[in-house]
Amino acid sequence: MFQVRTDLAVESRELYQENKSQEIPGVEVEQPKMSNDIEITRVKIIDDEGSRLMGRPKGSYITLEARGLKSADADLKDNVSKALAKELVSVIPKKQNINTLVVGLGNWDVTPDALGPEVISKILVTRHLFKMYNKSEDPSMSSVSAVTPGVMGTTGIETSDIITGIVEKSKPDLVIAIDALASRKMERVSTTIQISTTGISPGSGVGNLRKQLNEETLGVPVIAIGVPTVVDAATMTNDTIGMVVKALKSHSEQGSEFFKLLDDMKEDEKYALIKEVLEPYGANVIVTTKEIDKIITDISQIIANGLNIALHPGIDLKDVNRYLQ
Amino acid sequence: MFQVRTDLAVESRELYQENKSQEIPGVEVEQPKMSNDIEITRVKIIDDEGSRLMGRPKGSYITLEARGLKSADADLKDNVSKALAKELVSVIPKKQNINTLVVGLGNWDVTPDALGPEVISKILVTRHLFKMYNKSEDPSMSSVSAVTPGVMGTTGIETSDIITGIVEKSKPDLVIAIDALASRKMERVSTTIQISTTGISPGSGVGNLRKQLNEETLGVPVIAIGVPTVVDAATMTNDTIGMVVKALKSHSEQGSEFFKLLDDMKEDEKYALIKEVLEPYGANVIVTTKEIDKIITDISQIIANGLNIALHPGIDLKDVNRYLQ
Amino acid sequence: MFQVRTDLAVESRELYQENKSQEIPGVEVEQPKMSNDIEITRVKIIDDEGSRLMGRPKGSYITLEARGLKSADADLKDNVSKALAKELVSVIPKKQNINTLVVGLGNWDVTPDALGPEVISKILVTRHLFKMYNKSEDPSMSSVSAVTPGVMGTTGIETSDIITGIVEKSKPDLVIAIDALASRKMERVSTTIQISTTGISPGSGVGNLRKQLNEETLGVPVIAIGVPTVVDAATMTNDTIGMVVKALKSHSEQGSEFFKLLDDMKEDEKYALIKEVLEPYGANVIVTTKEIDKIITDISQIIANGLNIALHPGIDLKDVNRYLQ
Amino acid sequence: MFQVRTDLAVESRELYQENKSQEIPGVEVEQPKMSNDIEITRVKIIDDEGSRLMGRPKGSYITLEARGLKSADADLKDNVSKALAKELVSVIPKKQNINTLVVGLGNWDVTPDALGPEVISKILVTRHLFKMYNKSEDPSMSSVSAVTPGVMGTTGIETSDIITGIVEKSKPDLVIAIDALASRKMERVSTTIQISTTGISPGSGVGNLRKQLNEETLGVPVIAIGVPTVVDAATMTNDTIGMVVKALKSHSEQGSEFFKLLDDMKEDEKYALIKEVLEPYGANVIVTTKEIDKIITDISQIIANGLNIALHPGIDLKDVNRYLQ
Repeated sequence: MFQVRTDLAVESRELYQENKSQEIPGVEVEQPKMSNDIEITRVKIIDDEGSRLMGRPKGSYITLEARGLKSADADLKDNVSKALAKELVSVIPKKQNINTLVVGLGNWDVTPDALGPEVISKILVTRHLFKMYNKSEDPSMSSVSAVTPGVMGTTGIETSDIITGIVEKSKPDLVIAIDALASRKMERVSTTIQISTTGISPGSGVGNLRKQLNEETLGVPVIAIGVPTVVDAATMTNDTIGMVVKALKSHSEQGSEFFKLLDDMKEDEKYALIKEVLEPYGANVIVTTKEIDKIITDISQIIANGLNIALHPGIDLKDVNRYLQ
Repeated sequence: MFQVRTDLAVESRELYQENKSQEIPGVEVEQPKMSNDIEITRVKIIDDEGSRLMGRPKGSYITLEARGLKSADADLKDNVSKALAKELVSVIPKKQNINTLVVGLGNWDVTPDALGPEVISKILVTRHLFKMYNKSEDPSMSSVSAVTPGVMGTTGIETSDIITGIVEKSKPDLVIAIDALASRKMERVSTTIQISTTGISPGSGVGNLRKQLNEETLGVPVIAIGVPTVVDAATMTNDTIGMVVKALKSHSEQGSEFFKLLDDMKEDEKYALIKEVLEPYGANVIVTTKEIDKIITDISQIIANGLNIALHPGIDLKDVNRYLQ
Repeated sequence: MFQVRTDLAVESRELYQENKSQEIPGVEVEQPKMSNDIEITRVKIIDDEGSRLMGRPKGSYITLEARGLKSADADLKDNVSKALAKELVSVIPKKQNINTLVVGLGNWDVTPDALGPEVISKILVTRHLFKMYNKSEDPSMSSVSAVTPGVMGTTGIETSDIITGIVEKSKPDLVIAIDALASRKMERVSTTIQISTTGISPGSGVGNLRKQLNEETLGVPVIAIGVPTVVDAATMTNDTIGMVVKALKSHSEQGSEFFKLLDDMKEDEKYALIKEVLEPYGANVIVTTKEIDKIITDISQIIANGLNIALHPGIDLKDVNRYLQ
Repeated sequence: MFQVRTDLAVESRELYQENKSQEIPGVEVEQPKMSNDIEITRVKIIDDEGSRLMGRPKGSYITLEARGLKSADADLKDNVSKALAKELVSVIPKKQNINTLVVGLGNWDVTPDALGPEVISKILVTRHLFKMYNKSEDPSMSSVSAVTPGVMGTTGIETSDIITGIVEKSKPDLVIAIDALASRKMERVSTTIQISTTGISPGSGVGNLRKQLNEETLGVPVIAIGVPTVVDAATMTNDTIGMVVKALKSHSEQGSEFFKLLDDMKEDEKYALIKEVLEPYGANVIVTTKEIDKIITDISQIIANGLNIALHPGIDLKDVNRYLQ
């Protein structure tokens, strides 16, 4: 199995297919025909073999991709929010008066890692209103709370411990965790949203969450929403070298034996070599885009809108734009 | 008793003395001779009578005042950090390898209320290092963690519930809570630091914390550190009217009967009248200074330095300035 | 003439009328029937007498007031942008391919003074595109540039000198200057927009602009757009005292002689007295609202949208929301 | 000549020497023995040949490198500020009562490009005080002004036109321009400061300044101060490939012919190939570090301190730390 770093299930699948040219055993894929602007891929890992080959737990991984998001069209943004809301509704447990805790993972002070906290600042929070008016249900709203637990490097406490403590006190029926991810491809930065029902796996995300956040650890279902905001530097270099070799091959008749050698080299060996070579660049090197500040602002609004519509039954996009921004 | 809004014990005492010209029964006051630049007042409420007259729980209230803080002299700042550290050490429970959780109350998005979160961002956090290296003691460091729980209006959860949840999971021996306060006097904004051993009382602070944070609710001692960042608008107007009346009196021989009437009016009636009259200005009116952004930055550094020195036995101010800023 | 500090022509008029109960000589007022949500007042100072009584230069002062702006309804925001655009079009010189420089006055680092710079960050800037493609006209766009000159306290240079230098190099046909204002009433903070054709008068604004920015000094017409973001502390106290006196009068039969004395006191004497009394609060005291950060974000978008529609003939609100945010 | 993108003269020299193993003709290099912590290299391009080979105008290029800057030691920071001040004094024209305009190039809204504006916010500005008190000299201060002209993409105006306009109005004797740079090596990000006497060359910097800012265009001497805040992605990949090839060579006996081919490939061909291959990553890809927000804060303070000491004869580092931060 190849260990190229990616937080996106669709990329793990792509990598497998690049090598094996077939669908991964134990994995079901569905690509509903949507619009031309938004592409949805639903990857379902159904058995242990699929889990092993994909390098992640069994469950659903839904990806929304909209290349046009880069050029910031308000209609497309609204459509992505609506599509996101629809996919979220399909994975949120069916329960009357569900009580949801939204968790914004990541670090306010590191721009590409600030996605989670930024989404939280735009969530329509209602739990305290239910408490204040002593209500347990409402035709248009459900009970929503929202926290930003920080990262272990700045709190000194495992993020999962903070969330477990808050879950035990506030007793939600569902946790939705938002996090920034790393992609293999710059084109996916800010244009792709992944929903998964398996929680957040250790080591994922730009932040440094250690323990798992999932139904097992929190006692309630955990849905994760992630957006790539950075590209892994080693991955980028690895891909680039592959492309350089390809380009050189077509340019030259010579050295064909060597190209074969490099081509045949196992992906993980090559990746490890590059990792080692990049070490002087420091553990903290990130590859991102100049517009990352603006991108975090935009995509966090899209996700917050999607969540606000999905969680509050009587609220639609018009209301979200009208009352909440 | 007069209900003029102030979060500072020294101001409650001042108000009492303005009216009664004597020390409050049940209250002990100590003003150690320090330097000319920093004035320290230690108010100890020792019985129920003192508690009733001061309008706050029994315990110690230490105030550091340094008028010069406004003009930002680095030496004075360092001296205030050192004085703060010394006073903190005097109220921190004597315990080997004490494990402290620092809590930054308040709202990142409202500048005068962002003091708590700003201090947290400058705290030397070590708890995760003790865990990582599986240590329980260290000659120069103690175990410190730090969180910013947010405010109920943005989380939907009682702040005390969030903190209780985190305390139960991370098991500190001591909680130190930082909050922004309201003063009666603009001259105290950013120049006064109050330490108290009684926790944070309900309704205090710029934020809207409802339940108490104290040893009873959290199960461990709670030390509160507060700095005034705003002046209550009704208080300012009230004080101004008093001064106008005084000024008019000295200007005029006429109307002396009326002045007497206004002077004799009970403080709380006058305050209630002004509150009512100010209503159209909105519940959210704040009186602060133009430099509030810079002031929050400066004073949060002073407090963080004081905490870092007080909590880590092997660290002095030179190290704090050297390694942590 | 009364010297109560206000940057709004409608408030100068109100003050006059409170005292004299008649329209100001030399001033024409028009209040077109709009919608119920937005009230427009067009004050035209037509002669020297009007100028003297209003304490500002001859010219047009248009005020849009929308109390509902506080609760942030997207439709109302859009309507205000459209109404603003319409009023702007009525005062912008009729000229083909007009070249406009938008100037954001004020200080980024002082939240209530950051309105101008915030608007600039949302303006659709095109001048460089005209240059790049060597065009002088376009059916849907006009040439727009935008600068934030800073304030003299941080640049060391008169703001008018910076703007004059940029005007001489970039040769616009029109300057539109945005600034934060002070109002007498908290209810006007963030709900009122003033357009004037007379430039920015010295001493106006929250910032400390000294020299005038007008057609005389810049050589091209200057339109000013201002929004109150603070209330003057002395004004607030003055108004409050007035209301307290009124309230006391109705409560009490006594002291009627004194009330008469206070009532008869000249406005400017009273104001000067309060100013003096407030001195210990410092020159930098501001009275504003807790939500000022959010308010600056919202109102700057409304103004930027209004400007973008007014300046670019082929662009309407849908495009603005679609492409520019 | 090799076209690898670098804004640092020391890197152009390194590249030449990597290929030719000799000093560049027409270039004089001086490396004064300083401390162990700070390395200073003074590169002087003295003739046209040197200018052609270095790809930059004749003049002085002084580089201060302090690897330790990454770990934020206050003493080292102070030493770098002092060393910077000393080097600046050596290139600032000797003139009594010199009047300096400091220009912060770059874009506030793009973190790695915000260095210039951040430095400006920490400069001790005095020009308006000289004007206010009608003074032309002072024993401890010189006249300093400071502006942030923005970038053409957000102003619509050539940055050089804005600066020329301000220079004509405010008539400084000297312009000092601060800008963020790109380096070939991540280890130089935030640890290297370059001073040059030749102004800012077109195309340099992270921003998109087009016309030159130099003595010819502005009429007064221009000193540029730059700090690398990003690494060029193509450069990083190029360097990585070189290192991979080296690593592979030592691992393997095979393919030696190919390695020779790749090794012999001209630097510029290789770079162009990688540029092409990286195109899908987008024009806006940046390679930087996770800590870039903190780094910009720290290094801007170091530079501002250096400038404040160099420009104001009566001020030393103690005063800077005492009064200005």
